[in-house]
This record gives sequence, C-alpha cells and structure tokens, in this order.
Amino acid sequence: MEKTEVLIIGGSAAGLATANSVFARWPEKRIQIIRNVEYTVIPCGIPYIYGFLDSVKKNQLGDQGFLSKGMSINQKHLADVDRSRKIAFFEDGEQIEYDKLILALGSTPKVPPIEGIGLANVFAIKKDPVYLQTIYEALNFEGVKDVVIIGGGFIGVEMAEQVKMRGDYHVSIVEALPHCLMLNCEEFAAIKAEKELETLGINLINSTMVQSISGDNQVESVILSDGRSIRADMVLLGIGSSPNIGIAEKIGLEADPNLGIKVDEFMRTSDPSIYACGDCCTKFSAIDGKPSDVRLASVAALEGIIAGSNLFSPDRKNQGVVGSFCTKVGSLSIASTGYTEKQCQEKGIEYYTGSMAAPDRHPGSLPDCTPDMEMKLIFEKGSNRAIGGHVAGGVQAGDMVNIIALAIHNRLTAEQIVATQYATHPLLTGSPLVYHVLWAAEKAILNSK
Amino acid sequence: MEKTEVLIIGGSAAGLATANSVFARWPEKRIQIIRNVEYTVIPCGIPYIYGFLDSVKKNQLGDQGFLSKGMSINQKHLADVDRSRKIAFFEDGEQIEYDKLILALGSTPKVPPIEGIGLANVFAIKKDPVYLQTIYEALNFEGVKDVVIIGGGFIGVEMAEQVKMRGDYHVSIVEALPHCLMLNCEEFAAIKAEKELETLGINLINSTMVQSISGDNQVESVILSDGRSIRADMVLLGIGSSPNIGIAEKIGLEADPNLGIKVDEFMRTSDPSIYACGDCCTKFSAIDGKPSDVRLASVAALEGIIAGSNLFSPDRKNQGVVGSFCTKVGSLSIASTGYTEKQCQEKGIEYYTGSMAAPDRHPGSLPDCTPDMEMKLIFEKGSNRAIGGHVAGGVQAGDMVNIIALAIHNRLTAEQIVATQYATHPLLTGSPLVYHVLWAAEKAILNSK
Repeated sequence: MEKTEVLIIGGSAAGLATANSVFARWPEKRIQIIRNVEYTVIPCGIPYIYGFLDSVKKNQLGDQGFLSKGMSINQKHLADVDRSRKIAFFEDGEQIEYDKLILALGSTPKVPPIEGIGLANVFAIKKDPVYLQTIYEALNFEGVKDVVIIGGGFIGVEMAEQVKMRGDYHVSIVEALPHCLMLNCEEFAAIKAEKELETLGINLINSTMVQSISGDNQVESVILSDGRSIRADMVLLGIGSSPNIGIAEKIGLEADPNLGIKVDEFMRTSDPSIYACGDCCTKFSAIDGKPSDVRLASVAALEGIIAGSNLFSPDRKNQGVVGSFCTKVGSLSIASTGYTEKQCQEKGIEYYTGSMAAPDRHPGSLPDCTPDMEMKLIFEKGSNRAIGGHVAGGVQAGDMVNIIALAIHNRLTAEQIVATQYATHPLLTGSPLVYHVLWAAEKAILNSK
Repeated sequence: MEKTEVLIIGGSAAGLATANSVFARWPEKRIQIIRNVEYTVIPCGIPYIYGFLDSVKKNQLGDQGFLSKGMSINQKHLADVDRSRKIAFFEDGEQIEYDKLILALGSTPKVPPIEGIGLANVFAIKKDPVYLQTIYEALNFEGVKDVVIIGGGFIGVEMAEQVKMRGDYHVSIVEALPHCLMLNCEEFAAIKAEKELETLGINLINSTMVQSISGDNQVESVILSDGRSIRADMVLLGIGSSPNIGIAEKIGLEADPNLGIKVDEFMRTSDPSIYACGDCCTKFSAIDGKPSDVRLASVAALEGIIAGSNLFSPDRKNQGVVGSFCTKVGSLSIASTGYTEKQCQEKGIEYYTGSMAAPDRHPGSLPDCTPDMEMKLIFEKGSNRAIGGHVAGGVQAGDMVNIIALAIHNRLTAEQIVATQYATHPLLTGSPLVYHVLWAAEKAILNSK
C-alpha cells in the first residue's frame, strides 16, 4: 500500500495552500494531493472563462509549481477513511496510508428545489473544468440568446458581465434583495455596480424570486414570483454554496450541513490526525467570534497556510474571517471588508460611519482617474474599532480595502487609522487632502462627536 | 486692524489641511489663509505640468472648496510677528491680529554652491506658479534640447520622465548614489525604475556628482566629477529641500536650519499660540522616535489635520512619520514605507525580510496584469514588528504599501499581517495563493526561522 506523510484531498485554493505551507516548513515530507477533477481551475477566475479569457483551459492553475517540489497530484474520488488505521480508500480501489490527512473538499453550489431545475441548459457554477466546458459550449450554441442568471451576488454579477461582453446575448439577473451584491456591499456600492450593469445592457430584476423554470427538455423560460415569465435559453445559478461534508460525516467527524466540518483554531477536526480547511470547514468571524459562512478563495488559502503550519506541531491559530472581498463590474471596482451597516443593525451593534468621495488621482484630469471613488468606514461605538470598510471606484479598491481588513483584524480605531502616514501620489492615489482611507476615518471621528 | 481667529501662513498641503481640520471642528471660527504665491499648485503634481497636464494652470489646487466655507485666501508676504500682541505684519503694510497663528511655510529647494549655478536656464523646482511657468516656457524654447537633471530622487525621476514624454529632448539624470531613488527605495525597485527610464530613452549617470555648470550667460554644459562634460540647454535641480524657518527664527521661535521649526506632539511651537506644520517644522520617526527629515505632502496634510484638531484644545498627538511614498515611472509603480535594508544597517537594526514576486492579476493573462509585481517586507528581529515595506509593480502599489504603513505605525508583527483575511480578485489583485502582502510576510516568517 502506498504511504504518504501528508495526504491532501482537494486541489483548489485550500489544498494547494496547505501543500505550499507544509513544504515551506518540512520540505522533506512526502505530500500527495488528490483532486476529483482533471485539473485545477482558478476558482475566482471562472466567470472570466466566458469573456476575457474565452477558454476554460486558460483559467487553469498549473501543477508545475507543486510537481517541481516533489509533490504528486492525482485525480481520484475519496470513498472512505479508516481513521484508526489511517488509511484513505479511493473509488478506483487504491488505498493510501497517511500520517496527516487534510480535507480541503470545497463546497457545492446550491440548487433551489424548484420546478424545472433539472431541465437542460440550467447550470450551477461548479469548479470542474469538464462541467465549465459544457457551459462554454452551450453558450456558443447558436440558439442560445437569452441567459437568465438567478442570484445577483458577485458570481452572478461577474457571470452576467462576462456573458454580455461575449457577444449578442440578452442577459438578465434575478435577485431577491433590492439590489445586487447587497450581501457583501453597502448600498452606495451596489447602486454604482448596477449602473455599470445597466450600461452594459444587462437587465436587472431586483426584489424578485424565481418561482419555477419551464421548458420542454431544455429551459425555455423562467417564471418569476410576480407571475411574469421571461425567455431563457440558459439559466445560471449563483445563489451560494454548501460545504462538502459528506465524507466527513460518513467517517464520524463532527460536521454541520450549513457550517461545515468542525475545526478548532489550529484547523484540526475532531480527529487529531485529520485537518480541514477552505469551503468545507467551519469558520468564525474575527470581529465577534460567531460562526461565519463566508466562503472565499482568500479564506481558503489563509486557512490552508494555517493548517499546513500546524500539521506537525500547533504553531499558529486561525484568527477568523472578516469577509474581505473585491470585484470589478464594467469600469467599477468594488471592495468590502467586515460588516455592512445593515449587518451591524441586524447584529444590534451601535456604530458610526464616515465616507469620503473624491478623485483617485490628483489633479483629476490625470490619466486613469476615477472621479468619484468612494470609501465608507464603519466603527463600533464605544470601542471605536473599525468593523467595516467599503469602497467603489478605481482598480486599487482591493488593496485599499485591505488596509481596513488589517485594521479590523487588529482592532485598530479610527484615530489609529488617521494617525498613519500614507503614501500618496498624483498618478496613483487621491490627494493627501482627500486620501480616502485617512479622510473617511477622520470624517467618522467628526461624525461621532 | 483686521482680526481673525485662525491665521494660516501657507496655502499648500499643510496650510489647507489645517484649514479643513479647524473648519470641521469649529465652523464658526474665522479662518484666513495667506500664501506668498498667486495660486496653490498641487505640489506632487508639478512634474506632470511638463507632460501629462501640459499646463501649469491645470495643476492648480482650486480655492473654491475653502472660499465656500467662508475662509479668505490672500497673497501676501509675512514680514514679522509681534507675539506678545499677537499681530502678524505683512510686507504690504497690512497687519492682522490673530488668536492662533499657523506657520505652514513649506521648504525651499536646495541649490548646491557650485560654479555656474546662477546661469540662465538652471532651475530648482519651486512651488510657485510663476516660476513653474518660466520653466514651462524655457522648455518650449526651440533651442532647448538637452536637459540635465541633477538628483535622481523622485522629483528628478518624475521630471525626467515627463520632459522626455513631452517631445524630442535628450534627458540625463546625474545621481550621486549607485541608483536613482535609493534614498527611498530598495535596490530591486530602483533597478526596475531605471529600466523604465532607459526604455524611455533617458540617460542615467549614476555614482556621479556635478562639479560645475558652465556657459556664457545661459547654461551650455554640466561638468561631472569624473571630468566629463555633457551638453545642457537646461538644468533642473532635484536634490532635496530645506525647511523655511526664516521668519520663525526672526520672531524667536526655536528652530533648526536642517530640521525645521521645533514643534511638540500637538504641533505647537515654543509659543503656545503659534503652531507649525508641513515641510517647515520638525518631524520624528514613528519607528524609533528620532528626528526625521521626511518632507512629503502626505506628511504635511496629516500634520495639518493634527494641528487643526489641537488649535483650541489639545486633542490628538502626532504619531510621527514612516516615510510612506509612491510614484510611477513609465509603466512601473513604486511605493515604499518605513526603512530600507540599507537604513536598517546604518541604524544598526537587526532585521529579516521576505519577498514575493508574482502577477498582480490571476490568471496572469487577464487585462492590465503586471507579471512580476514584487513586494519586500522588513521586520525587526526580536519584536518581529514591521519596519519596512517596498513594492514595485502595478498601479495599486500605493494602496498596497499603505497596508504596511498602517502595520508599521501600529507595531504589527509579521504574524499579524499573515493572520489577516485580505480581499483578492482575478481582475484586481494577485491570487490568494501568492497575494503579495500575505506571502511576503509569510516568507519573512519562514526566513526568520
């Protein structure tokens, strides 16, 4: 029987980050990565397969960096684990004995139990290149013109934008909330994003649910909760995902169908030889310590690093997630970290905010200026610590919000954000007289008085 | 005699930030801003007058935002101050009685005492629109083809790039150090910047001093320390600046010719009714508390905010500077904060570093990708706190380095930088498997073991 010291089940962000992390610390350990797909797709890059990249293959995350370190990567399906003997059984009959087993099993897109969901040309967004190729080919089929996307979260919005850019499609997004992206973003950012979508010619149907899908073998229309029917040659689902816990439950690890395989701060499951990380495992908020269902590649990669560091001795604790996220819609970049105002209200947190809208170059007539880049910061009353940061504007949005992510993780206050001397430059940032991070925090301080 | 509650001498970043800060807290106070120039130029935008903007006027910082708040802005030259009676005297004979006086006097470009420095077409970079217009017109003069820039700091480099972009000039930079930008940047960034300059066709003369300037009335050549002579129809000086302390000394405030007007943590001079901020006043390092000569608009604006907040009651302390700075050379954006390795060595600080070079989009074939964006982080041994951050790559460099600026100011460690969940996205950042901030810190941790 094959033996390996580190057996990683899952070849996406969490699994690969674990592999990197183990290798960096213990390069002599034998590392085997098992994935259930032919090759690894860059998970966040999936929407761009259908537009900018125009290819499933171009969104591949190559194996070379891992193979060159002596790791092996194979396609197999995990069938069972004998925890007492520390043996993993695969569907092809192979058995691998492990010292440490890492479950990086990912998640599965949610599929609503509505009528017609099983019709042809109804797709979820699975991280499987073969499945993604099927969507690609279906989109290229001549008869496919009307594409309806159910769910206006970031995957839905990104898919809508890329499909629309691809060619002459009629693209609609059906979103249950009053605006797209509202689970992650402040309303000001969501509204700006919707303007971009509308400029691209995408049809937004907000505050609306999907009742059913109809058609004869293949989808023909989507029936909305208000009774309307809209034409659809293809339906794409973007309504979230559920952690893959099947195998973990089967082998008796603690797991929750909504929250995932239970892990401690060292990313250990209830079996000390088995770790879990990424979409498949439980998470907690870095702000209030409560369970979180934030599933992002950035979270998965960070958890992989932590799991990898801890495999052979507990070294570092997971500090939780703040939900940092960014995307681009048309010419608008959006980024969020921590809570939105709405989330604060739902959680009963007393807070104050400060906003700064200003050009992100100075003077604003310089090239590549976004004239009204806007940042809103949210601070907890009393402690004054940062608990939310939201940006909409130029392409530096992601890194700009990461300043606030660091602040939230380290419980920094508005005063500490203001007291920092930031780099500014005409071609790269707003003027120091309006620099977004500094002034949004300063305005929050003024608002709190 | 006119009376005002807040009299600000200086209409650039420090003065205007003070005005904004006072107004935000005490909108009822009368605020008068006096400047010695016709209008305020955006200080960091000056190089772009000669290229992207092609106009001095387009680099104006407008008064409207200040006038609309009821402030007055006038052009005058401060001649004297009667501190006991709290009266400022101006060269035009006007006197203004003040409650609080803010000296935001700026700095003056250094002019080396070499032969020929007084020849026509030898210019420093003064923040005076009339003077800047003279340079603009001199550049447009048909006979001006060879432009020699003395000093390869960021002003020199930016001027070189913009003059070269302007048209058919032969541009040379003479720099005393082995590379341009070495006072602020790590060598890897400086070398990348030099490649951009060379691609633009700029002639780099490093490790070389200027001996003298020669010509008959107007500059004709520059004589280098190695004896070479290079043609020059124009010489631009970019070798740093000295704080404007003249008036402060005259009226008996404590001041140092190199470090500036002495201020305490509340930005108060030795006279409790007089504050100073910006290039003209003393500064200290947020890392070790020692005197600093970092003079940047971002520092000036921050000090203005602090001074303004403290005018009528001590509210917040200046936390010092970390020298955060960014610029763009050709297609390369560069940003730095805190110390360089060289500075650590000079200061006898024991440190370790971590670097990450990776595409800033994922996959790297996506639009606007900088394939080898590089970040280096420097941590102090023992405390493990961040003391330096350096980036060269895409346009998000400034905001990316500001993550580290916040970390340095708040003494965060490499572990705290790694433990943060950052936003990543294919179109905006590197992959979470290589995200620069996270992985440079992680690599530093690994290097330290």
